[in-house]
Order: sequence, then structure tokens, then C-alpha cells
Amino acid sequence: MEDERNASQEFALSSWSRYSAAALGFRNYWYPVMLARELGKKPRAIKICGEKIALFRDGDRVFALHDRCPHRGIPLSVGRKEAPGTISCAYHGWTYDLESGALVAVLTDGPDSPICGKVNVHRYPVEVRAGLIWLYVGDDPPPPFEDEVPEEFLRPNAVVEGYAEVRDGNWREAIENCIDEGHSKYLHRYALTTFWREAAAWTRGVDMVPSEDGSWLNRVRGETVVNDVYPRVGLWPRKKWWRKQLTGQSTQLSNRLPCYCRVGNPRSAYTSYQIFVPVDETRYLAMMLSVGWKTGLGALRFHLQQWKTLRWGKRHGFDPQDKWAISLMEIPPERLYRPDKSITGWRRWCHETARPQNAAERFALLAGGEPSPVQTVADGR
Amino acid sequence: MEDERNASQEFALSSWSRYSAAALGFRNYWYPVMLARELGKKPRAIKICGEKIALFRDGDRVFALHDRCPHRGIPLSVGRKEAPGTISCAYHGWTYDLESGALVAVLTDGPDSPICGKVNVHRYPVEVRAGLIWLYVGDDPPPPFEDEVPEEFLRPNAVVEGYAEVRDGNWREAIENCIDEGHSKYLHRYALTTFWREAAAWTRGVDMVPSEDGSWLNRVRGETVVNDVYPRVGLWPRKKWWRKQLTGQSTQLSNRLPCYCRVGNPRSAYTSYQIFVPVDETRYLAMMLSVGWKTGLGALRFHLQQWKTLRWGKRHGFDPQDKWAISLMEIPPERLYRPDKSITGWRRWCHETARPQNAAERFALLAGGEPSPVQTVADGR
Amino acid sequence: MEDERNASQEFALSSWSRYSAAALGFRNYWYPVMLARELGKKPRAIKICGEKIALFRDGDRVFALHDRCPHRGIPLSVGRKEAPGTISCAYHGWTYDLESGALVAVLTDGPDSPICGKVNVHRYPVEVRAGLIWLYVGDDPPPPFEDEVPEEFLRPNAVVEGYAEVRDGNWREAIENCIDEGHSKYLHRYALTTFWREAAAWTRGVDMVPSEDGSWLNRVRGETVVNDVYPRVGLWPRKKWWRKQLTGQSTQLSNRLPCYCRVGNPRSAYTSYQIFVPVDETRYLAMMLSVGWKTGLGALRFHLQQWKTLRWGKRHGFDPQDKWAISLMEIPPERLYRPDKSITGWRRWCHETARPQNAAERFALLAGGEPSPVQTVADGR
Repeated sequence: MEDERNASQEFALSSWSRYSAAALGFRNYWYPVMLARELGKKPRAIKICGEKIALFRDGDRVFALHDRCPHRGIPLSVGRKEAPGTISCAYHGWTYDLESGALVAVLTDGPDSPICGKVNVHRYPVEVRAGLIWLYVGDDPPPPFEDEVPEEFLRPNAVVEGYAEVRDGNWREAIENCIDEGHSKYLHRYALTTFWREAAAWTRGVDMVPSEDGSWLNRVRGETVVNDVYPRVGLWPRKKWWRKQLTGQSTQLSNRLPCYCRVGNPRSAYTSYQIFVPVDETRYLAMMLSVGWKTGLGALRFHLQQWKTLRWGKRHGFDPQDKWAISLMEIPPERLYRPDKSITGWRRWCHETARPQNAAERFALLAGGEPSPVQTVADGR
Repeated sequence: MEDERNASQEFALSSWSRYSAAALGFRNYWYPVMLARELGKKPRAIKICGEKIALFRDGDRVFALHDRCPHRGIPLSVGRKEAPGTISCAYHGWTYDLESGALVAVLTDGPDSPICGKVNVHRYPVEVRAGLIWLYVGDDPPPPFEDEVPEEFLRPNAVVEGYAEVRDGNWREAIENCIDEGHSKYLHRYALTTFWREAAAWTRGVDMVPSEDGSWLNRVRGETVVNDVYPRVGLWPRKKWWRKQLTGQSTQLSNRLPCYCRVGNPRSAYTSYQIFVPVDETRYLAMMLSVGWKTGLGALRFHLQQWKTLRWGKRHGFDPQDKWAISLMEIPPERLYRPDKSITGWRRWCHETARPQNAAERFALLAGGEPSPVQTVADGR
Repeated sequence: MEDERNASQEFALSSWSRYSAAALGFRNYWYPVMLARELGKKPRAIKICGEKIALFRDGDRVFALHDRCPHRGIPLSVGRKEAPGTISCAYHGWTYDLESGALVAVLTDGPDSPICGKVNVHRYPVEVRAGLIWLYVGDDPPPPFEDEVPEEFLRPNAVVEGYAEVRDGNWREAIENCIDEGHSKYLHRYALTTFWREAAAWTRGVDMVPSEDGSWLNRVRGETVVNDVYPRVGLWPRKKWWRKQLTGQSTQLSNRLPCYCRVGNPRSAYTSYQIFVPVDETRYLAMMLSVGWKTGLGALRFHLQQWKTLRWGKRHGFDPQDKWAISLMEIPPERLYRPDKSITGWRRWCHETARPQNAAERFALLAGGEPSPVQTVADGR
């Protein structure tokens, strides 16, 4: 038995080089970045995929610009609104069109300022849908919003309740934790939420299978084993009279690029989403959302119920445990086991299907090339 | 229109290589570093141009030494005074002459300690004048204090009131902000101090012109335009009945090496100085001073009046706005515009006239060489 | 006289390359790491020699494992005890044998998990003796505990009282401070503890001499000089009527690898130890211990008396002064003097006698090689 301090790792992030390179997330995708109700008249500064972005609400519309005046590097998010549809930098009054990012006036250089028309700030395509603000982050022209975003958010009567929070850890650790088969049977066994319920001990087999249209990667699982007799530990978990065995209802987990995890329950009238948006290498934005389809009073009731449920879960449910584990995780190196096939499946899928990230990848793809080769992997498959 | 995220910069700090290299300030100059009244019996530790310096008051005199005992690296500023004119390191009693920095006694090694006379600590030439402590930072022999420091500080009846504060940002961002033509017409428009007054919209032309004796670089400005009609914004600024148009009085701004900005007003009986002393790459010491020429009761009244005025300005005037903007500035890259000719003029002047910083520069200068070439610059000139 | 800012250093850490390389301490040694009474049922996370270690109490025994689950990098110190003699990782229930570090069960992968028997976590050999927990940190097989640890801790009736604290600074600065001849005559002169006593001014000669069996390096000192007349300072220290001259009693200081300093007093019925265990490059664990030899009520009285004495010393004695000086020390560079022969003696001894740290050193030693050459050193010897 080798010493783990020197052991070479059979499973390494680097087996899937495109995934391993995505510490700042996958580019050329639409990302949800904020609940629309959280953006008021005051501009907001955020960071997504390592880029500083200023969000502006102007009348009914929302705009997003690179949060840096090219003149002297002051954030545009601390600017002033001198005219509708524009933002003026707080330092010298360089005034940009919110829609295009073009420099349209320079107040402290007169109407004939020769620099007008020669400078523009990067603008991020924005959509406001289902109570969320979505941005396109990338270098290629954006694909149509409707083609990319899960259909459940696009229905006209979609209602979203939830919360969003920047947390410690890389976004990949967060989304891998979400589909991680084993941890829910150990870490979450000790949550207050599950005090009355008994989780199973383990599951025979787990795999990730793409949906028919290729947009989702579904986690499929074998039979669960309620309890078992282990070396050294004996019978585990031991029966506790106050805990009721969980029955039939099976939660369906599905991942989607760039960073969605959909938590569906057949018996439920809504869908839960956990979306892990990259902030930078060491932080991610956790968006914990419930999506329903209601109007009027039904929508109001949905908001209230989900607000209550999510609030409880944020305190006593799985979420604080996941947040804690992700903040403690230190990988690489790592050493995976059978149930981690969900993780390696997701990594492989990202490696093979993520949009080209840059010119070199685009060229290779057009030339009929493939992503860089995937190594064979032992225990985890 | 190019994307600013990838745009090459027409104006770069690097156009003036000697200025661009001066992140820690220009060496071989006298610097004011503290109000003399702020140094009591207890030694003070400061940092100037990246060097740790200990200041000592001994009787009527002030001394400055490199703040590090060569023995084991303990700051001398935490030392003890065992005899007049000396400082003993707190750790082992290595005792230095404050005037020369020479190791004159080693208390824990006996009177015959063989290391005495073999070690000395770098001493910084010091002058106390007009209520300020000045140090010479550099490697060449210091030029006479009187030849270098502005004449207004040298008059026998000079009185100085003011405050000094270490702030975030590089000293060059601070002094560039000071002569920056455009920002006072936008950023400072919204200060409480200017609530009753209306600043002009913009200025036709700005330039930096050396004084006859070559010791000052004066900012000269064209006609100001009260308001104007801009694309997208329309008439700006709009007339507000409670704001009175500013008239004729023109503030004269003049810069001087190494880091002075003189704010002169012809109608005023005193001069304001803003001095931005380099601390390290990311911090500077802002000294906001008023210099008058009074004695006796007149001097006392000057102190009181200026104390009140400066205190108000520190809270509600331009100073907190400048401090804020400088702390937010992120350059390079940058993209300059017409009014920034004051900034590029200052950079060029520093590049061309700053004293040699090291042996290589001294040699090149003696050989009749010139500073490295200056690139041509577009919009800003 | 040269300027110390550019001076080459006559004495440099690098003169003794093996000592200079030991920023994380010497490997392949037993280290005391904690008072046994401070480890309860809850596991404790520590860092020693740069390695993260989890300590566990299981019944009467104490175990130590590398504090990182190889699976996903969660600390084992936040794990759960599912069965006697094991620890289960909080994330997925990977269950390790505390004695061997072997993975014995994986609760979330069933009793037949194929990864069992293929992974183990590094276990650190542990001894609990004289109320202290000791670990072996290294790569070679551990030498017998009794052969290495000072005999005073091994007596059956040994009683230890003391405190342990992680502090700023490298462990070498701390142990060098301990045997540093000069500082006790200057820095500690101004402690509250010595208010009534007058320390001598200086000592004629100091040296480090190995004990007969080669396990200790004893500091030997020449005659002390009560006071003397120094250049510039005159008579020092001046007589103060309330201070009584210290007489005959001489404290015997002895160092021992890896990081012990023994403070023996012939008149005392116990021995003091100051042990400076490396945590990482910039922190060390200071263990201030009194070792006596008592049983029953005598042991209890020893605990109470020493607790009181050590508590006072921690507040008003030499310890807070040493802690302060070590935290301020910035070396290299350094410039040593005569009394530092205790320091250079210790460095040389470490360089010449420390156990091989790695395979290359082991090989050189077997081949009859010597440690890399020691440079000649001037003043300090």
C-alpha cells in the first residue's frame, strides 16, 4: 500500500483538458447572474468568469458594460446618469451609450471632443426573463437566448423564487458536489432536515447519460441498499426508531452547460435549480432557485411558499453543509471511487461538448478535429 | 470601433520610460515627510520611496536613520535612548550615533567590542523648516536644501498649517489627479463646497509650460465654456437658480519635482501646496498644506483660520473626492483625451528633467546622452 | 565605513547550508506538539513542519493522521467516529483505521467497495509521555522514542506543566533567541520580573560545547562584567538603589536537536524547557514547559506552583519580550557580533549533526561524505 502523500493520482482533473482549463468557467455562454428584483436604480458591480461587469437599470431595461472606464480605469458602476440611456464616468464625465457601449459625449472636453466615436466599452448582451438577469459572456457572437436556456425558464408564466450568494470555492467543485452520488448519503444524513428520515446506505451503480437532444446530462442510478454490513463498522446505518425509511420518490438530477444543475421531482409542481456561476478562480455565485408556472395570486402564493421553504433549507437543509464542504475541499490531487462516475461523466461531457473557447479551438473544430484525447480511467467507471 | 478590452493604448505610461520607472518616486531629492509638531520624544517609523526610516527628536534636533538594526533586523524606532545623541537597539543595545549612523557602542559586548567602528546605519540628511521635517532620499550627495525647496517655505516668517495622511494609490496617480484639467469640472461639481457655485463645463486648451528658471511647470489654460450642447445629453450643465457662476479668479497650478503641486491664487495672502510623497508602489503620503508669512499673533491667527478651512475641506471639499477617485483608479491601460495634455506634459517633463536615478543614468548624462526617446502621442497633445 | 544598505554580510545563514535549508524544521525527528490534556474527544487540526496533521483521542490512545482525505481533500479532523479505532471522512464516509491509516470501509460504496485496501493516509507515529503528545515527522523509519527524547521526560514520575502557543516568526529565530547571549542583558533588563534585580552588562566569552554523549550542545560562558564605561554612553548600567545585584546562580542553557532549549538551574528541583516546534516558514509553536518528578500530592502541588509561575512569566517575564522581538526580526541579512558565537555554534552543530533529511543526504552520508563545507566566519567566533 503506497503512501498517499507521494501517490500518483489515477483520476486527475487534467484527464479532461478543456474542463481542467475552465477555472473561470466556459466562455461563449449565457449566464444567469442576479435576481432582477435586486437591481434597483443604483448600478451594481459584479464579477462573472473573472470579468468585472456593471449592471444598469434604465427604465424598463437592463444593460451591462465592462466595469472600467478606458480613460483612467474608474469603475463605471460608480458613475452618474446625465441623460437617459447613458452612463457618465464619475471622474471626468465620459458618457457612454448603455446599449452599445460607445463613447457618445465627453462633458469636460466640449461637444466636439475628438475622442468621441473612437472609444467604446465592451457591452454584454442582456436578457431579463423569469425574474432573472442573464448575461452573455464570451467573444463569439451570442447564440439566440431561447436556444440555450432551459425551456422551463422561457414559458410565459414562469415564476422564479430563490436566493443568490457568492461563496468560497471554484464553480466546478460546487457543481460536482451537486451531482456527487455519495455525499448525500453521508454528509446530508446529519442535517436537521433529515432528522426524521433515514437515507439509504449506498447505491448500486451510477452513470451520466445525455438526453435525447443532447442538451442535458442525466444522472441515472441503480438500486439503493438501505443498510449493509461493513468491515470494521458492522451494520450501518443502524436503525433509529424515530427515523422513517425514505421510499420510492427518486430525485432526478440533470446537468447542463455551462453550469446548471436541475433537481426534478416527479411529484412536484415546480423544478429546483442550483446554478453555480463562476466568479473567479476561488469564488462562485450559488443561485438556488425554484421555478414554477403560475400567474396572479397563484404566482404570489408560489413566491411565499418557496421563500419559506428555501429559507429553511438555507439554514437547516443540505445547502449549508454543501457550502461548508466545498469551502474545505482541496483538489487536486484527488482519488475517486465508484460513485464518482457521475463526476467523471460530467467532466468528460464538458470536455467533449463545450463550445469552442477561443480561436484555436474554433479552427480545430472546423478542421474536423477533436478535443484533446481523453485518458483511460480506472476505478471510477 | 474596436473593443476596448483588446485595444492597444495610444497613450501609455511607458512613453516616458524614466517616469514609468518611478513607481517608488524619484530618488536624489529632498522630501517633506511630516509636520514637525507630530514628532515627539517617541521615535516614529515611516516609509518613504519604499525605504523604512526611523525619525528621532533629540533636544532641538531631528535625525533620521534606516529603520533596521543591521545585527538582527529589529527596527531602531522601537529602540531606547541611553545617551544624548544616540539610539540603542531594543534587542541587544547596539548603540548608534544619530548624526552619522555609526555604531559607537555595543552595551552587551563591552567597551572594547571589536565590531564598533565597522558598522553604520544609513543616515538620511534632515532639515526642519517652516514646521515641516524634510529628508533627503537618494544615493548621490544631497544638493543644498535651499537650492531645491520652493522659496515660499524658506522665508524666515513662513508658517505652515495642514495635515498629512497615508492613502491608497501610487503617488503619480495622485499628482496627475491634481493637475488633471477635466476632473475638477465633473467630479468636483458634486462636492458640498461647490453647492452654491457653478463650475464651467470645459476649457479650450490646456498646456504645461516651464517657468523661466526651469524649476516649475505651470499649467496654462484657454478660455472656459460655461455650458454647451452635447450629443445625447443636450445642454449641460443646466442652470440651477441657486448656483452662482464662478467668475474671473483663476487658480494657478504649478508642479515641481519631485512631487509638489502648488495651488496659487493671486488674491490670496497664502499659498496652498498638495505634496504627494511616495510611500511604496501602492500608497502615498498626501500632505495638504497652507503656507503663509506671519509672526506672533498673526501666525497664530493663520494657524487657526487654516486649520478650520482645511478641516472643512477634508470633509466636504475636493480632497475626499480626489482620495476616493485615486483609490479606484486602475492604470495602465489608459486612454487619454485632450485635457490630459497637462498630465502628458508633466510626464514628459519628469522624464526629461528628473535627476539621474542611478550610476548608469549619471554616466549617460555626463556623456552628453539624452533620456531614452519619447514617442509621439496622438489625441492628448 | 561602508553603507549597511549595500554591505555584503560576513555572517550569513547560508554558511551552514543544511541549517539554512531547514525553514520547515529538521525532518526525521520526534516532536512534542501538544499538552495531552488539551486533546479531548473532538479531533484537533495542527500543522507541524509544514504538514497538516489531525490528532485523535480514541479511548486511552492518541493517533495522528495526515489531515486530508485523499478522495476530495476534506480534512479528516472534521470527520466522525462511526466505529472504535476509526475515523470517517465527513463528506463521503471514507473510513480509515486510526492505527495504520488504511482505508478499511467506504460507507457510501457498499461493503465490497473495490477501493478499500488501495488507499491509505499517512499515519504519524505517536507517543504520549509526561503529559505531552509527541509525533514523529519524517520519511525514514522512526528511531526509538526513548533513544531520542531527553531523559527527564522519560522518568516514570515525570510531571509537566506549561503552555503552548503558535507565534509569528521562524522556529530558528526563536531558538536562536533562546541561546542568544546578549539579549538577556539588554532586552530583559526592562522586564517587570527584573525590576528589583540588576543584570550584568556583558560577558567575557561565550561558546557552545557538545555534551559527552553528543546529544546536547551546552552554552558555556566566561566571567560577567557588572558594569563598564562605554564610549559615548559612559558608565552603564548606572547603579539604582532599589536593584539588587544578581549573584552566583548561573543558568545552564543547553540545546538539542530538533528544537529543544533546556534551561537548567542547579538550585532548582525542576527543569524548564523552551521548545520551538516548526509550524510553517513564518510561524512556530512555542512550548514553555516545567518538568518535575513527583507523584500524588507532590505532583498536584507542582502543577499549581508552576502554573502560577508560568502564568506570571507569560505576562510580565521574559517570554512576552522574546515573542515581540522574534516577531520583529527580519533576517537575512544580518551582521553578527562576539556574543553571537552561541548562535553560530548552534548553526554549525545542526549543519554537521542533523539527521539526513532526504535520500540524497542519506546516500552522501553512507558514502562517507560530509555535509557541504562550512565557510570561515569572522567576528562571531
